[in-house]
Amino acid sequence: MASFESLYSENALNMKKSVIRELLKLTQKPDIISFAGGLPAPETFPVEDLRAAADVVFVKHATKALQYGTTEGDPDLKDELIKFEARQGVKIGQDHLLVVSASQQALDIVAKVFIDPGDYIIGGHPTYLGTIQAIQSYRGRVLGIPFSKADDGFDMDELERRYASALRDGKRIKFIYVIPDFQNPTGICWSVEKRKALLEFSYRTGLPLVEDSPYREIRFLGKTLPSIFQLDQEGENRGNVLNFKTFSKILAPGTRMGWVMANPDIISKFVVAKQAMDLCTNVFAQKWIAEYLKTGKIYSVIEHTCGIYRDKRNYMTELLEQHMPKRPDISWTKPEGGLFLWIRLPEGIDTDKMLLKAIERKVAYVGGSSFYFDEPEHNTMRINFSYSSLEQIEEGVKRLARVVAEELEGR
Amino acid sequence: MASFESLYSENALNMKKSVIRELLKLTQKPDIISFAGGLPAPETFPVEDLRAAADVVFVKHATKALQYGTTEGDPDLKDELIKFEARQGVKIGQDHLLVVSASQQALDIVAKVFIDPGDYIIGGHPTYLGTIQAIQSYRGRVLGIPFSKADDGFDMDELERRYASALRDGKRIKFIYVIPDFQNPTGICWSVEKRKALLEFSYRTGLPLVEDSPYREIRFLGKTLPSIFQLDQEGENRGNVLNFKTFSKILAPGTRMGWVMANPDIISKFVVAKQAMDLCTNVFAQKWIAEYLKTGKIYSVIEHTCGIYRDKRNYMTELLEQHMPKRPDISWTKPEGGLFLWIRLPEGIDTDKMLLKAIERKVAYVGGSSFYFDEPEHNTMRINFSYSSLEQIEEGVKRLARVVAEELEGR
Repeated sequence: MASFESLYSENALNMKKSVIRELLKLTQKPDIISFAGGLPAPETFPVEDLRAAADVVFVKHATKALQYGTTEGDPDLKDELIKFEARQGVKIGQDHLLVVSASQQALDIVAKVFIDPGDYIIGGHPTYLGTIQAIQSYRGRVLGIPFSKADDGFDMDELERRYASALRDGKRIKFIYVIPDFQNPTGICWSVEKRKALLEFSYRTGLPLVEDSPYREIRFLGKTLPSIFQLDQEGENRGNVLNFKTFSKILAPGTRMGWVMANPDIISKFVVAKQAMDLCTNVFAQKWIAEYLKTGKIYSVIEHTCGIYRDKRNYMTELLEQHMPKRPDISWTKPEGGLFLWIRLPEGIDTDKMLLKAIERKVAYVGGSSFYFDEPEHNTMRINFSYSSLEQIEEGVKRLARVVAEELEGR
Repeated sequence: MASFESLYSENALNMKKSVIRELLKLTQKPDIISFAGGLPAPETFPVEDLRAAADVVFVKHATKALQYGTTEGDPDLKDELIKFEARQGVKIGQDHLLVVSASQQALDIVAKVFIDPGDYIIGGHPTYLGTIQAIQSYRGRVLGIPFSKADDGFDMDELERRYASALRDGKRIKFIYVIPDFQNPTGICWSVEKRKALLEFSYRTGLPLVEDSPYREIRFLGKTLPSIFQLDQEGENRGNVLNFKTFSKILAPGTRMGWVMANPDIISKFVVAKQAMDLCTNVFAQKWIAEYLKTGKIYSVIEHTCGIYRDKRNYMTELLEQHMPKRPDISWTKPEGGLFLWIRLPEGIDTDKMLLKAIERKVAYVGGSSFYFDEPEHNTMRINFSYSSLEQIEEGVKRLARVVAEELEGR
């Protein structure tokens, strides 16, 4: 068999297979309770309404939906996105919008448009694995910023320190990347003060600020805070913020549909990049989601989803309180939204090694080390609460607590 | 407004906006007869059967179709693709297949996996514009090989000469790219002899051979020839060939669905690259096309489409014979399939400049110069015959012939 190893690009040699995706295969045995994935709950999918919307496309727009579309995105869908955003107080026009094949494609585009080999982005330490992969696939690097003890955003002193030090070392930094609403993996929600401070940092440094908001609408406790995109828009309106949104968590990931909001110059640049990537996002799916949005039913779906996740999250934190060993060096985040919480175990515990024992006990999670570009922490884990049923959450947390207790005893 | 020009990557600075996509906007006025685009005829879309297939997905597979899928592609769709290929004598397993968001994504992946800045591919002179764009977006270059006078594939002597010269100049060449069945833009179909010769060239040089086959099944005259992928498989079976396929021309481009066939090593590498690009192709659309393929109706759709295109192509070549100025230095290809033919005008005619006059006369085409990475020819044009009605073809060819006649007189 021909081997082309010696012909691969430097980018290809730097690409890492997702540990999580490999793990997921392990954990898909039916008797394993998996908190490892990041799947939304299938009971939240509005199947019948999506079915009706698809049928409307065939009746009303079949020829357009089955033909090539523009790279920018379907104007009907963009109109609906403009209305969707307007309800949240975000005012944008068609020129501020690019339809993408869900937000992973936006991450690929932003990496391709900004990253030369060796360039840095500023990102969370930890941060979303898919972003690390996209950056690595262009041989970029992440300048990781730890979070504050209050779980309210970056440790801003560390941001200043590490940024200054990176500049001194001659590092080229291209943009800032954050998930202010219920970060993956930690579940952390940024305070308004920290959002404003980061926006000021973006203005001062001239760096674009990528605000990834897949979970923004999945808030089940507390009050919605303005997005950084909004803070810019309602304030100095300099157009520094690129906001990535997706239907993956608020409707259904199988639609593979997302959108980028940014200033028109950035959108034009992204359009040229996307043209060479896939010409246009699935045209049928764009028309389908546009028709679904026209029904106005997405708002009650989001409310319903938030209710389900609130119950699951509350149940999970309750059970963790009950069953996890009680020690000051064991803690977890208490997210007000999103799909994940983040558990810290005592120093010295290696959650990657512990995973094998967990799988023996028929429970799975993702070791925290996967979410670091470098200098990983090994005593953390990401736990998903959206996918499992309440019964599975109860049994799964009990199993997990037993694994942790045994690990502590074994030391 | 913030400007981030100074932060763009070298790749981004090298990306070119598609001239054609810009042109298409000009030519979309309703009174212009456009031979410029590459759209399939909407009357070929099997709307009702696709509608029924979509509905089956909602009834039978809603939860899976709306959830995340694997990067490799939906196993049900891959089973159907295996059957589809088997009917054409191609024997592959799931491991030889990657589902992609139509073949432009395959071009992006192959460029990302192989191209470092300055690297070359061997390609047609001219060749498909989307391939040139994908290669340029990673700062790659095309070593263009002219076609033989017989319109049966590369001028193989030129291939050897240019390859040897490129090696002498220290150029790094990464793969060979061809569209053997009814090339875009020329409509040329490679002879079996030339297919075999190119495969031998690939074996001898150790270069992967990318066979892009969007039009392979759209043969309306003559006998189907073995693909180069097949010639390898049925011969030495070394796994040198990567075959890109798509439903864009044989079913509907709005489905944005394609597949890559290659040896399992290459497929694994492509999966890792695709993971960071979009996680997975539209899951609903994969299930939808799988259900449609299960009906077995695609074969009659292809037959019907070929019939329509045969009529349009025959009518167009007939009208060209009748109306174009009769000179030995005016000629056009007589494609046995695909969507395009290629007109050569006398040396000195600049079809890009002539286009403005054509648009005044309410007819449009694409100037041939768009399809060259470098050293473009200016006296050629690409003409699409799939999209226009017979009436439009008649009127459009008359207008075009008049424009050419006037251009010749004006010299």
